Amino acid sequence: MVRLQSYLQDQWMPGEGTPRVLVNPATEEPLAETTTEGLDFAAALAHARDVGGPALRAMSFAERGALLKAMSRALHADREGLLALSSQCNGATRGDSKFDVDGATGTLSSYAYLGKTLGEGRYQIDGEADKLSKGARYVGQHVRLPRPGVAVHINAFNFPAWGTFEKIATAILAGVPVITKPATATATLTHRMIQIIVEAGILPAGVLGFVAGPAGDLLDHLGPQDMIAFTGSAWTAAKLRSGAGVLQRSVRINVEADSLNAAVLAPDVGPGDPVWHAFVRAVVKDMTQKTGQKCTAIRRVFVPTDRIDDVVEAFSEELAGIVVGDPQRSDVSMGPVATASQLRDCREGINLLAKEAEIVVGGPAPVSGVGVADGKGYFVAPTLLVARDADATSEVHRHEVFGPCATVIGYDGTAETAAAQVARGEGCLVSSVYGSDRDWLSSFLFAAASWNGRVQVCSEKVADQVFPPGMVLPNQVHGGPGRAGGGEELGGVRGMDFYTNRVAIQGDRGLLKKILGTP
Amino acid sequence: MVRLQSYLQDQWMPGEGTPRVLVNPATEEPLAETTTEGLDFAAALAHARDVGGPALRAMSFAERGALLKAMSRALHADREGLLALSSQCNGATRGDSKFDVDGATGTLSSYAYLGKTLGEGRYQIDGEADKLSKGARYVGQHVRLPRPGVAVHINAFNFPAWGTFEKIATAILAGVPVITKPATATATLTHRMIQIIVEAGILPAGVLGFVAGPAGDLLDHLGPQDMIAFTGSAWTAAKLRSGAGVLQRSVRINVEADSLNAAVLAPDVGPGDPVWHAFVRAVVKDMTQKTGQKCTAIRRVFVPTDRIDDVVEAFSEELAGIVVGDPQRSDVSMGPVATASQLRDCREGINLLAKEAEIVVGGPAPVSGVGVADGKGYFVAPTLLVARDADATSEVHRHEVFGPCATVIGYDGTAETAAAQVARGEGCLVSSVYGSDRDWLSSFLFAAASWNGRVQVCSEKVADQVFPPGMVLPNQVHGGPGRAGGGEELGGVRGMDFYTNRVAIQGDRGLLKKILGTP
Repeated sequence: MVRLQSYLQDQWMPGEGTPRVLVNPATEEPLAETTTEGLDFAAALAHARDVGGPALRAMSFAERGALLKAMSRALHADREGLLALSSQCNGATRGDSKFDVDGATGTLSSYAYLGKTLGEGRYQIDGEADKLSKGARYVGQHVRLPRPGVAVHINAFNFPAWGTFEKIATAILAGVPVITKPATATATLTHRMIQIIVEAGILPAGVLGFVAGPAGDLLDHLGPQDMIAFTGSAWTAAKLRSGAGVLQRSVRINVEADSLNAAVLAPDVGPGDPVWHAFVRAVVKDMTQKTGQKCTAIRRVFVPTDRIDDVVEAFSEELAGIVVGDPQRSDVSMGPVATASQLRDCREGINLLAKEAEIVVGGPAPVSGVGVADGKGYFVAPTLLVARDADATSEVHRHEVFGPCATVIGYDGTAETAAAQVARGEGCLVSSVYGSDRDWLSSFLFAAASWNGRVQVCSEKVADQVFPPGMVLPNQVHGGPGRAGGGEELGGVRGMDFYTNRVAIQGDRGLLKKILGTP
Repeated sequence: MVRLQSYLQDQWMPGEGTPRVLVNPATEEPLAETTTEGLDFAAALAHARDVGGPALRAMSFAERGALLKAMSRALHADREGLLALSSQCNGATRGDSKFDVDGATGTLSSYAYLGKTLGEGRYQIDGEADKLSKGARYVGQHVRLPRPGVAVHINAFNFPAWGTFEKIATAILAGVPVITKPATATATLTHRMIQIIVEAGILPAGVLGFVAGPAGDLLDHLGPQDMIAFTGSAWTAAKLRSGAGVLQRSVRINVEADSLNAAVLAPDVGPGDPVWHAFVRAVVKDMTQKTGQKCTAIRRVFVPTDRIDDVVEAFSEELAGIVVGDPQRSDVSMGPVATASQLRDCREGINLLAKEAEIVVGGPAPVSGVGVADGKGYFVAPTLLVARDADATSEVHRHEVFGPCATVIGYDGTAETAAAQVARGEGCLVSSVYGSDRDWLSSFLFAAASWNGRVQVCSEKVADQVFPPGMVLPNQVHGGPGRAGGGEELGGVRGMDFYTNRVAIQGDRGLLKKILGTP
């Protein structure tokens, strides 16, 4: 069996003690094993801080961008191998695997381009110099400097490729070394990608570390300039936020948590409209892509009460075509969820929602996967529920089933009600709205937008261009308030805010210009 | 005795139970009493969210700025009354009182002007629209929307005027209602200022609440869009960060904590230079202004070893002229610290530092105040310590004496050592450096700046213009990493980041332009 090793202090380290076994979630066959016991995380952090940080800070944005470009190229060169490994280890179809792996190389490439654009500077100039005294000579200039610490990245099991590299891309471009920890269950793909980068000899010493399993005491050693960027559950987020480093040493933490993202059908859109088709496509895609295991997937679908039957019919028809089974087969359109515990959570969650909503497609019952021995694999049926009266719902706004499951919820068709219902989720990563009436959309947006990190407006003129709202782009911020974790990633240069300290430098205008290189 | 009342749900509320008595820290005479028992904080928060928030969000920046201008004018109209009250209640000299009260009206006025500049918009446009598909039509536009919650401000005892209103100015301009809580010991001045604003009828209903004493269960009722902006000790900060709202509901929190700010004398500056004089003035001012009770005050003074004697001589000469006593007298240049427990902490702290540094001026012994009955008042002597060898120090980099106390620490004169010593404070609000050698300053800045929220460079050509580094300006960020709390306030528009959510809005370029009002 393959032993996944950690990569710390520029060395592969196997760990000690009893390893955990990782399985193919479609077949439950063992694939790899890993342990992080006995690893010296304090030394690994110190190495990143003392060796990796200074090396990156001495490079220009263009040079850091070139590192990202080289990483993107090296990974892309082994694309077929990575896609196959993804399908084998993560329950991902080829399409799902592309979404994850190409998402990783694409984001690296996007940040590489941004680095090229930012050019020869080593830090960001923030605005113009402010005059501080009567004369023009004494001024204050804000800059954003890379934090002289290390970024610990803790990622979720659902995006072992993209989740890892979208964070790495931003940190490295900002000038900050990284120790990245994927979720153990799906770490095999991440491990292979790190291996490719290490073998290609792209990065300076100390810039990248990799933890192939539990984080042990890693976070206990974080200091005042270190950072934690986390994607995962609210429960784990609360635990991380309770760490002594965050509470007492102001370790900076960014959280992306699962949320109850909404799709809203406006009352001006009916069957046959191009916007209607985009709506149906988006919801079904978001329900089934990666077996619904996307933090940005649509969970709540708000529909004017008199459209419920049409919507359910359209969704049901599409969902009927979904083939569940071994994702390595080309005739399968949806794989299993990633782990046995995810499967259990999905089933329990569907049962919970079924107390206030009617199951109209799928449900919690066991499912046999095409091409898999009977009773094997963590399969869930694509599941659609309907709650005709939004006022009679509650769990659907706070309990997320992290699988191929969404609930259609009736509302009265007004923008105010739609926005209020979106807000009941208490913070979403993304919501989408389908309609073309400008006044309606305007009312909806001003009431609903601040409950989201991103809002997609699918109207007539772009109905053929929009992609499903679950898709995160490197130049758009990714995050959301409240339940979504209150964090922010990506968004082009915006993503670097987390990895930098904004400092006001006050002094003689001429002297500061020469030292800081401002225009 | 005056009863300080809280102002919640647009009503003055006296509270119940046994009140706490507030005293004049120079004479220990009782001045006022207050209690917040029995107040319905949940209802107060809901009122701010449901009434104050919508009212502010419906206003333009210019309109919100006009509110701030009116507040500034109303407070300034009673300037003499406020200065007298400040000296009576806070142990502040007339100069200290001006620093606090004029700081409040000045910051309000500065943000009022910013509102005027921002004009008719109701939220900020963040960058240009990004093209998201091959065509030019489908785009993503980032905006910053006011959070639909309430900001709870928890302030420190040392700036009952400025601390309160610098936070209020930023929040209201951003479009967010406030419930403000000064430290109980010095709440009398804040209470009077809120009274003036309420009597002037400036603010719409629900925009401003005031808690005259302990916060009770106020923070337990915070929701996903609410915010806590805190200034005070690291210990209280850790407690606030451990609250269920922050841990589990992503309540946003900003912390400004006390830090061990540094002043660094570069080796090119000697006695007689204009920069030398600016250095001596700055350190002595920062030590004694507000009896050293400024979170931005200089605590560590790094001096090339061969300059220590000259520096100590210069400081001692200036400190000898400081008259400690009743701050209401015009012949007194430094008042008491604010409370009995501050006095105790100062004395204990000086004793702690004296284990590794020599006391050369002042010390922990009791001091009689001019114009005060013997044994009364919380007086501390201006205290200077010297540690000739930086390598032999440790407490001086981690224990702050929050009073008129600083330590001169010797270093080898290199920029690298100076920066490393600054960094030993593990995060400062501000550091200042005194020198004119560009190469030296450049080396120092690139190693030291990211350990600070602000760095002041006092060189030859601005030596006559710089003000002591402890002075915070509304257009410069105020905050710092690590021990300084990791937060950020002020900095003009930058200060509004905390009160807003950045949202990416994706859709048809033409439609979004019309809805969002982008150019």
